[in-house]
Amino acid sequence: MRSLHKLDHPVEDARRFLEPGPIILVSTAAHGQRNIMTMGWHMVMGFSPSLVATYIWNENHSFSLARDSRECVINVPGVELLDTVVDIGNCSGRDVDKFDRFSLDAVPAGKVGAPLVGQCHSSFECRLHDGSQVVSNNLFIWEIVKAHVAPRPKLPRTVHYRGDGQFMVAGAEVSRRRRFKPDML
Amino acid sequence: MRSLHKLDHPVEDARRFLEPGPIILVSTAAHGQRNIMTMGWHMVMGFSPSLVATYIWNENHSFSLARDSRECVINVPGVELLDTVVDIGNCSGRDVDKFDRFSLDAVPAGKVGAPLVGQCHSSFECRLHDGSQVVSNNLFIWEIVKAHVAPRPKLPRTVHYRGDGQFMVAGAEVSRRRRFKPDML
Repeated sequence: MRSLHKLDHPVEDARRFLEPGPIILVSTAAHGQRNIMTMGWHMVMGFSPSLVATYIWNENHSFSLARDSRECVINVPGVELLDTVVDIGNCSGRDVDKFDRFSLDAVPAGKVGAPLVGQCHSSFECRLHDGSQVVSNNLFIWEIVKAHVAPRPKLPRTVHYRGDGQFMVAGAEVSRRRRFKPDML
Repeated sequence: MRSLHKLDHPVEDARRFLEPGPIILVSTAAHGQRNIMTMGWHMVMGFSPSLVATYIWNENHSFSLARDSRECVINVPGVELLDTVVDIGNCSGRDVDKFDRFSLDAVPAGKVGAPLVGQCHSSFECRLHDGSQVVSNNLFIWEIVKAHVAPRPKLPRTVHYRGDGQFMVAGAEVSRRRRFKPDML
């Protein structure tokens, strides 16, 4: 599969892609190594600055790369990458370079050392905003400092993990904009 | 709409309902008041104990109820409640009792003071596990201490917020169980 052409995007709009709770691919680089991990445990925490929290288990190979570089890229894959997403989560970066293994393009980022995953629909470059819970709770709070989003498709058909090998695929889009107070939009 | 009949469920299986990232309704009670808030900013943080983190802005009426009671109930609504979910998010518990306003059943919980929202598909009673980030980051880390899940439908058709009044509705369920290593399930 080829890389998707992405355009610069406002960082405060990252919620549009992350808040629905998709499985993401988190790329990291440090110590001359790079890695990708599959992640379902993340949450938006703010718009401006644009904040995202991620849980990275301290036994994961990505933990030390994220902790030591204080950077990562959050990539949002579509359902067409589902088998790759699963396989990335079932091997370790200690044993294999996952970009090579899965023929994924490591696209240089603009502001961080970790590469974007070219085949993903959108990629958000992150710097560590608050590391106070890294040791105690494996919790990294990131600031998104640069956003890249493919213009087509307008929204990726994301996958959402239920555990036990089961996924929900994103369905219909509906608007309730007219029910919102203007200051709640 | 009537309350759904729910059964006790293993707490460590809550991820099945929460990890896909649905909009949830968080109910709280303290100081003789009760409230419900609509929330999209949450993440699973563990299985055993069964942990969930939520971001509750300190200007929300629910913030002080959650902080002072150190308890809440996380309720998962299906798409049939979407208009109510939006309307709950567009008024304040300072002005109105949301259970009354929206004709929702406040079902007594088993282990916490906050009520379940009867009309939701599943409800997870929570006690505060780690409050160290409440003041600094509006972040509550909860332990789910009792789970209630409707046996039918087997899975709710959840809604997932994109911001700007737009929602994604949960689509197809797919399994990739056979691609997983046994210890990754």
